[in-house]
Amino acid sequence: MSTLALQNQQYRLAARPVGMPKPSDWHVTIESVPDIADGEIVIRTLYLSLDPAMRGWMNEGKSYIRPVAIGEVMRAIGIGRVIASKSPQYTVGDTVCGSLGVQSIWVGAADDKAAGFYKVDPAIAPLPKYLNALGMPGMTAYFGLLEVGQPKAGETVVVSGAAGAVGQTVGQVAKHKGCRVVGIAGGREKCDFVVNELGFDACIDYKNASVKDGLKQHCPNGIDVYFDNVGGDILDTVLTQINLKARIVICGAISQYNNTTPVKGPANYLSLLVNRARMEGIVVFDYADRYQIGAAEIAKWIQEGSFKSREDIVFGLEKFPEALLMLFEGKNFGKLVLQVAQE
Amino acid sequence: MSTLALQNQQYRLAARPVGMPKPSDWHVTIESVPDIADGEIVIRTLYLSLDPAMRGWMNEGKSYIRPVAIGEVMRAIGIGRVIASKSPQYTVGDTVCGSLGVQSIWVGAADDKAAGFYKVDPAIAPLPKYLNALGMPGMTAYFGLLEVGQPKAGETVVVSGAAGAVGQTVGQVAKHKGCRVVGIAGGREKCDFVVNELGFDACIDYKNASVKDGLKQHCPNGIDVYFDNVGGDILDTVLTQINLKARIVICGAISQYNNTTPVKGPANYLSLLVNRARMEGIVVFDYADRYQIGAAEIAKWIQEGSFKSREDIVFGLEKFPEALLMLFEGKNFGKLVLQVAQE
Repeated sequence: MSTLALQNQQYRLAARPVGMPKPSDWHVTIESVPDIADGEIVIRTLYLSLDPAMRGWMNEGKSYIRPVAIGEVMRAIGIGRVIASKSPQYTVGDTVCGSLGVQSIWVGAADDKAAGFYKVDPAIAPLPKYLNALGMPGMTAYFGLLEVGQPKAGETVVVSGAAGAVGQTVGQVAKHKGCRVVGIAGGREKCDFVVNELGFDACIDYKNASVKDGLKQHCPNGIDVYFDNVGGDILDTVLTQINLKARIVICGAISQYNNTTPVKGPANYLSLLVNRARMEGIVVFDYADRYQIGAAEIAKWIQEGSFKSREDIVFGLEKFPEALLMLFEGKNFGKLVLQVAQE
Repeated sequence: MSTLALQNQQYRLAARPVGMPKPSDWHVTIESVPDIADGEIVIRTLYLSLDPAMRGWMNEGKSYIRPVAIGEVMRAIGIGRVIASKSPQYTVGDTVCGSLGVQSIWVGAADDKAAGFYKVDPAIAPLPKYLNALGMPGMTAYFGLLEVGQPKAGETVVVSGAAGAVGQTVGQVAKHKGCRVVGIAGGREKCDFVVNELGFDACIDYKNASVKDGLKQHCPNGIDVYFDNVGGDILDTVLTQINLKARIVICGAISQYNNTTPVKGPANYLSLLVNRARMEGIVVFDYADRYQIGAAEIAKWIQEGSFKSREDIVFGLEKFPEALLMLFEGKNFGKLVLQVAQE
């Protein structure tokens, strides 16, 4: 019997979804938290990052990361507070970021490799920022844009999912590097935010306007870098407007993740040939040894007031299944974060 | 009235083809060859290069080169002999390579930029080789592979259209650079040629075997570079077998050029993301200032006996319409060349 008297609520993968994840694809378990051994810690989950990539982790098959197994607690990056520690590395009260999983409590070795915990400082930025611009989405945007997209000052950068976690940072980093930046987002409110708050030069509302016309209007010098978070028809349309030697960063394809039919490949991919252009994938983990550099530059901009980020926070672990769907319906406005406990 | 008493037979584009080019898409004209002015030359066409890219030149719309206009002589690279000259650059009897067009005689300024003539030496290699390994297909293969594909010794290179003009050279250059090379071609005869004559490590007969199974068998270490001449299902299959950081060179998509429905985009393009891989187009003209370097290296290998090339020569200008179709039906075996006159 545990002396901690803590219950851990967990969302486990019950079935591999076909199309959109359904409530029955999840199995909720409640476990008592055991006493910990030397080297172990207990973390209370405060915030969980909900990301489009999670949909991919639920599928079987070879990918850039092992799929979540049936019966396993769903993988999720989160921020938590250390509430018990038998590790010299952590003190009760420390705030950490790592792969906590979709559960209210994490228990295990402090140096667990899969969890990959590191301390974060609540004094530097509000904690949800560590899941956004200062976390995985921010690093994905920063390194995907700069390393794969290689924008030069004066070039035109287009980013889809512009109001989303990655898109926000892509556009702002590109502005800081002297580029013209055009976003693509769904709805007037998101587009206004992207232009008025984040400082993009323009934003095309794909739900209410022609993306092709918008690109022609707002990219008078063509497109040099396209950072793609959505795939599908928008990718195909952008391909018709790229410049010679353009770089297309393939970060995601949220329009295709819940397909029950095959993914729609980019029919206009031969534009790569005509324009001697390049399409290249980015996986953030490849840049892990340089996260500090990226986060430091963004943190500096945040402190200077020249960089903003927005989170869309949903409260309650029990909201996880429906909150996840918000991503695929474009209902989140900013980085989607699930708050699991009060700070 | 001309003193040359020469008739020039010409194939002009009569209509933009829908799908496969039909006989009625061509209009044959016969013109008397005029007397030439100072600076002009007359060239008798000996050989014309028939290339998949010609299908693209017949379409309207922005591409890497101006489309052939309706009523214009069809564009074609060829080898010819100077039969009259009022230019100090050329003497009667010189052999030249350039954009002669699908016609029996070329007349105009010796320094015509669009024609881009340069002399070739029949003593160094048989003339059709200048349309193959020592010409555009060879340079496309050489620079596409080495500059875009960037193969390293020990890596595995796969090339489709392996028995075709570009494919032959891609595979042999890759072998010379120390790679494992696997071809994809249609039919046993072509595959045997590619392995036994050109020295590829293996060749998959896509008409009679599973490309996926073949790749698994012959690429035990996965695919590092894929040089794509065909697009369609083969590109999609290769995408499932690529390695981390693989490079896919988009040179052509012969399977898609005569589509009357939209091009089939690569449904598995998200493999680029999973594998942080790259897909990039090549247009040979970008390397024009370095053709000499590429041709010199290939010529050296030819002279050493470590490089072979095969041409499939069709006789007679009047065979042009049907010979062109051989490319799209995979009926040519080696670089397709139309011989227009005896040397």
